[in-house]
Amino acid sequence: VTDEPQLIMLPGPTNVPPRVMRAMSKPIINHRGPEFREMFRRVTGNLQYVFETKNDVITLTSSGTGGVECAISNILTKGEKIIIPVNGVFSGRVRDTINVYDGTPIEIPVEWGDAVTPEKIEEALKREKDVRAVTIVYNETATGVTTRCLKEVGEICEKYNALFIVDAISILGGDKLPVDEWKIDMCITGAQKSLMTPPGLAFVSVSPKAWSIIQKSKRRFYFDLPACRKFLADDETPYTPALPLIYALDEALQMIKEEGLEPRYRRHKVCADALYAGLEAMKLNLYAKKKVRSNVVIAVNNPSGITDKDIHKRMLEKYRISIAGGMGKLKNTMFRFGVMGMVNPANIVQTLNALECTLSDLGYKMDLGSGVSAARDVFTREKML
Amino acid sequence: VTDEPQLIMLPGPTNVPPRVMRAMSKPIINHRGPEFREMFRRVTGNLQYVFETKNDVITLTSSGTGGVECAISNILTKGEKIIIPVNGVFSGRVRDTINVYDGTPIEIPVEWGDAVTPEKIEEALKREKDVRAVTIVYNETATGVTTRCLKEVGEICEKYNALFIVDAISILGGDKLPVDEWKIDMCITGAQKSLMTPPGLAFVSVSPKAWSIIQKSKRRFYFDLPACRKFLADDETPYTPALPLIYALDEALQMIKEEGLEPRYRRHKVCADALYAGLEAMKLNLYAKKKVRSNVVIAVNNPSGITDKDIHKRMLEKYRISIAGGMGKLKNTMFRFGVMGMVNPANIVQTLNALECTLSDLGYKMDLGSGVSAARDVFTREKML
Repeated sequence: VTDEPQLIMLPGPTNVPPRVMRAMSKPIINHRGPEFREMFRRVTGNLQYVFETKNDVITLTSSGTGGVECAISNILTKGEKIIIPVNGVFSGRVRDTINVYDGTPIEIPVEWGDAVTPEKIEEALKREKDVRAVTIVYNETATGVTTRCLKEVGEICEKYNALFIVDAISILGGDKLPVDEWKIDMCITGAQKSLMTPPGLAFVSVSPKAWSIIQKSKRRFYFDLPACRKFLADDETPYTPALPLIYALDEALQMIKEEGLEPRYRRHKVCADALYAGLEAMKLNLYAKKKVRSNVVIAVNNPSGITDKDIHKRMLEKYRISIAGGMGKLKNTMFRFGVMGMVNPANIVQTLNALECTLSDLGYKMDLGSGVSAARDVFTREKML
Repeated sequence: VTDEPQLIMLPGPTNVPPRVMRAMSKPIINHRGPEFREMFRRVTGNLQYVFETKNDVITLTSSGTGGVECAISNILTKGEKIIIPVNGVFSGRVRDTINVYDGTPIEIPVEWGDAVTPEKIEEALKREKDVRAVTIVYNETATGVTTRCLKEVGEICEKYNALFIVDAISILGGDKLPVDEWKIDMCITGAQKSLMTPPGLAFVSVSPKAWSIIQKSKRRFYFDLPACRKFLADDETPYTPALPLIYALDEALQMIKEEGLEPRYRRHKVCADALYAGLEAMKLNLYAKKKVRSNVVIAVNNPSGITDKDIHKRMLEKYRISIAGGMGKLKNTMFRFGVMGMVNPANIVQTLNALECTLSDLGYKMDLGSGVSAARDVFTREKML
């Protein structure tokens, strides 16, 4: 691995600010000592700030998938029903996790590229009765779709006395997500997406209502939430945490507080808007339906006759920009961008320019400069250039 | 957390060499890209070198406890018997993990401070019949005891057709452990102990015999070994790995190869011998029986009238040296040292000197200098000073 940095436009991991990178080189300390506890108390408090919650926020050393498994496995008792709308690979993974833990997933099939409606959720709750939880993947990373009705679903869950679980892995920190206001009982995210921290940490917020269910369910080991809660009371973790990543997270959360949540969400939105405008000006075909398009992950169908493999190989080798391909049934059909964390207008312009040159080299017909120009118009209008 | 480094004499995490710390600041890259794959292939190969195995070695983003849960949960089918000698907190944790996954732990109680014998293992295998596996905690971190009969137990397991699982979390990389020669089917370790990498990674080696059992058992998600194996074939991990820690590990493993396993084990042994000699010269009482004393973790009973809390507070505040206390039923009865990773004679002398001053300040009667002097004699005899 060379020291020449890339521009990471992946849907995670994402670019990490130099301040955050430098924080990882702080000396090793005892994770059962006073210095750790002081830092971990601040980290947990700042996570609550970003989650907009008074609930406990648990830090796990694992990928985001581990965080989802933690949430599901801690509330499930054999046979219990959990509603899960599936509109992509990651919501499919939540369904599979429910199965693995002997739950009964009530799948609401949703067209990929679209999002579930509150009506469909209520319909399922009414029909199924005794549903333990409703789980929604807020941002389906595989398709670039954000499910925008969480507030409504939270109300519905309360009405039917179901827990509301939100997988917010690729989005938390990049788009609005007030956990308490939206009545979310468990909210899961990962470090390496919109929180601009290197990968290796996951987080789960747990409401009092969720704790009361968790107490009754079967405990496992590494993802045992009651054990996490017990140690959290002393600002510790039950098992040795990934210390350098906690240092990094501490710094990233302080940067997020300095920026403020609203300006941060606006920056993500304007960057995404500009990238969408650029892609459309280049006559590229976006995968997600317009009304559910994500501000943090953008999926583009391959232009006819050009493979995403060729596109991302050239983007990486010639321009040092990392982008992703499709997942699951969308493999070999699309390429995807992350618009996350420290993303700024210069990154978007740089990406669009490289994409224009790349596609043009690969024989795609378009007006060179049209993408960059459309993006610049958005930034100018929004006074961000 | 200040930038002033401590001398970490904990039984993990341990001191991390500056080369390894610096490696963490390499730029973020795509964990599905060519640069990652090239590095991860080298890392896996070097792990096989340290494990002395041709078996697959799986890298997990988790603490060591996650690694143990991974191994146990992947081989267990409900009700199956696993033999586990329990001589401390960590072997107790293995027994609990077997219970959590609906296995039947066949516990062999062993006096804390001592180790199981091969005869006891064979007796249990003969009595119980149909035992799925024998699990041994090679180095019981809570008591400073190393179980030295793994080679014999490996032979016995083969004879009775039981899998042989070794929890080597605090020891692998610091003491002899030829996985293939000792017929170990699954060997688990963590990054933050004798491998001198920051915490956050665990490793599990898996033999062909273990794979054949794993195929038949119930799969979970985050710790799903068949998924890990599938991705390992492409030098990847199923979920986003803790990239900076993989960078660090890559560097640490290269340092281990440069030193060589035999010189490395000898360095650990001589440092431990010197520390033992110093502690005995100070008339302190060691917890572990002499014949099973560990070269990587050393447990000392509190001198009468002095608490370990006072000792480690003073060691940390006055000398910037981190040491640990007791665990489980040994809490408030002892203090423990790690002799791990990059440990060298200067660390041992510095630690003994600080301990002499600390104990003397706390009213313990001894000849000041006796500990350091005894340690120096060991290093001189071994030509390491």
